[in-house]
Amino acid sequence: MASPQVRSPELRKDSVTKRWVVFSPARAKRPSDFKSKSPTTQSQQQQECPFCLGHEHECAPEIFRVPSSSGLPWKIRVIENLYPALSRTLGDPFAQNNNPNASGSVGQVLGGFGFHDVVIETPVHSVQLSDLSPQELGEVLLAYKKRIQQLATHDAIKYVQVFKNYGASAGASMSHSHSQILALPVVPPTVSTRLDSAKEFFHETGKCSLCEVRVEDLLIDESSHFISIAPFAASFPFEIWIIPRHHSSHFHELDDAKAVDLGSLLKLMLRKMSFQLNNPPFNFMIHTSPLQLPDSQLPHIHWFLQIVPQLTGIGGFELGSGCYINPVFPEDAAKVLREVHIP
Amino acid sequence: MASPQVRSPELRKDSVTKRWVVFSPARAKRPSDFKSKSPTTQSQQQQECPFCLGHEHECAPEIFRVPSSSGLPWKIRVIENLYPALSRTLGDPFAQNNNPNASGSVGQVLGGFGFHDVVIETPVHSVQLSDLSPQELGEVLLAYKKRIQQLATHDAIKYVQVFKNYGASAGASMSHSHSQILALPVVPPTVSTRLDSAKEFFHETGKCSLCEVRVEDLLIDESSHFISIAPFAASFPFEIWIIPRHHSSHFHELDDAKAVDLGSLLKLMLRKMSFQLNNPPFNFMIHTSPLQLPDSQLPHIHWFLQIVPQLTGIGGFELGSGCYINPVFPEDAAKVLREVHIP
Ligand SMILES: Nc1ncnc2c1ncn2[C@@H]1O[C@H](COP(=O)(O)OP(=O)(O)O[C@H]2O[C@H](CO)[C@@H](O)[C@H](O)[C@H]2O)[C@@H](O)[C@H]1O
Ligand SMILES: Nc1ncnc2c1ncn2[C@@H]1O[C@H](COP(=O)(O)OP(=O)(O)O[C@H]2O[C@H](CO)[C@@H](O)[C@H](O)[C@H]2O)[C@@H](O)[C@H]1O
Repeated sequence: MASPQVRSPELRKDSVTKRWVVFSPARAKRPSDFKSKSPTTQSQQQQECPFCLGHEHECAPEIFRVPSSSGLPWKIRVIENLYPALSRTLGDPFAQNNNPNASGSVGQVLGGFGFHDVVIETPVHSVQLSDLSPQELGEVLLAYKKRIQQLATHDAIKYVQVFKNYGASAGASMSHSHSQILALPVVPPTVSTRLDSAKEFFHETGKCSLCEVRVEDLLIDESSHFISIAPFAASFPFEIWIIPRHHSSHFHELDDAKAVDLGSLLKLMLRKMSFQLNNPPFNFMIHTSPLQLPDSQLPHIHWFLQIVPQLTGIGGFELGSGCYINPVFPEDAAKVLREVHIP
Repeated sequence: MASPQVRSPELRKDSVTKRWVVFSPARAKRPSDFKSKSPTTQSQQQQECPFCLGHEHECAPEIFRVPSSSGLPWKIRVIENLYPALSRTLGDPFAQNNNPNASGSVGQVLGGFGFHDVVIETPVHSVQLSDLSPQELGEVLLAYKKRIQQLATHDAIKYVQVFKNYGASAGASMSHSHSQILALPVVPPTVSTRLDSAKEFFHETGKCSLCEVRVEDLLIDESSHFISIAPFAASFPFEIWIIPRHHSSHFHELDDAKAVDLGSLLKLMLRKMSFQLNNPPFNFMIHTSPLQLPDSQLPHIHWFLQIVPQLTGIGGFELGSGCYINPVFPEDAAKVLREVHIP
């Protein structure tokens, strides 16, 4: 067996749990600027931060920047992750002989081909995503879109997961404002489940479930093209979904006007959450559709952005059962978030 | 709408995610003896701990104790959870009219009937589960069994989740050694998935996937009736499964001799993990079968106990996709755990 240091990443699916897991020895080496709890000054942290303006050479290669003209200072950079979970240099796993490996009956194996990128949302260390203007936030969203469109040109890529970790207990290892894009050679389990239930709902009702989701007591806010709600069966207290008003299967259908509009509603939600819940760690995730979805399924599935503040941990019950315990009813969370006035 | 204080728990299933969530306002009031980071002495903590010998009156009602004769001091107590996620006094949710509620198309609702118990594993605050003898650990396992058998008499209970949280970052709010038992009126998602994949595997191969799971490089240790392995697609670094050698669908089939044998292997795994990984927070979960499983499905499914040390957090990728990133290949973890010699 090769030493863990030099092994390539691998995807495995257990025959018991049916869950894909990305094995990625490179990830073990990630540094963390949250780890040291010793008193370091803000300026020291900034000097060491590879995501800051002037430290571009400390980063993995750039994919593109915004604005793209090299004469102007950058506002957003999309770069390769220096400790990628998946490898962009491995061959297409479907071109190889994709049979269960030596472990045979215990599960399936796939080469760890994929892309793992970082979106640096601002050149300035002290600026957070919610500090950006709706216009600037829109540019971050359009950077996601542009990168997804590039990744979609690879036949082996089946799904692109865009996500953000903010704060150490939401998993962030870097404090400079950033998000991540992981392009996978498989459709992940939450997406398959979402597709199946969307299809079932469509066949029963003739409608898309997210087109029908608007319920007054769950509504938080709305903009021209989006609504924000507390989902009916929120897994986490104060979980928020931002949903396009009109049916759209893929996030990367977002146009420039909608990006700014979404930027304004996202900013409002982040600011309300931060104000009401005292700047909690949070994650957001874009739930879109698989890249190669057959046209016949487009009417079923509707993308949305999920925001999860990390207020309570999880324990053995959630790990074991996959059920969640939420102490806050979503209609109560929605009322609080609807009524909170940010100063 | 009733105020959150007086509302009964409720189960909801979102029509998008198909995930059951337990809404439980009572849980918001849980105390935590981990919360205060101020320097309190061990003895102060003990004096305040309701799970300690002599503090029985500070607990919710006892269900049973071990040994059962009232003349002897107790070694194990199974009690009601004072802040239960589900309510044992609500009516059977299936006897009521179980239709989607006012929110209609957005999902399903079920009354929050169920049982939520705590197993106090020792009367002594400073004793941890791995300090118990194999015999004593066997008694804890038999207490789970006895309680599951009692819960199985309720027709409305479909699945019983036994789990343990150890350490604050594994979710524990109480430091006194304990585990929990949650009896649910639904079969949770991980169990349905496990059943489906077991059935599929059985139909393809004529065998149970866990009867076939033994692979030399994933094996950690073995006892007369059990093996311990690093699972082929472990979601977490150093995750361990303890599996009965011979086919058994339900944990509560465990007899007295097997309980001691499992106690010895569980103790060994907990001690190896604690020694090798520096006493990490961890969870363990018993993955058993639904209570009312049709006889025809018994050959497919095989119970096991999963131990997960909490070494890395999760982030937006895992929350969004349901895929996990694991920096340690299970064959490497198995080798380390196989070879570690505890002093
Ligand atoms: N100089 C450099 N150039 C380019 N990239 C650099 C870099 N220095 C660091 N990076 C990368 O920047 C990323 C920062 O990401 P985050 O802070 O959002 O969380 P991270 O991915 O570490 O893990 C969290 O998110 C993942 C995914 O959800 C979880 O698996 C994990 O447990 C959780 O801690 C890291 O992935 C790191 O590899
Ligand atoms: N005097 C008393 N009498 C009887 N019972 C008492 C009591 N005082 C406290 N309790 C109960 O004792 C239990 C202790 O349980 P744990 O420490 O394992 O974690 P907890 O359930 O709090 O939450 C963790 O586990 C759950 C389930 O996995 C997660 O939802 C959650 O996020 C995580 O923190 C609590 O459930 C509490 O309600």
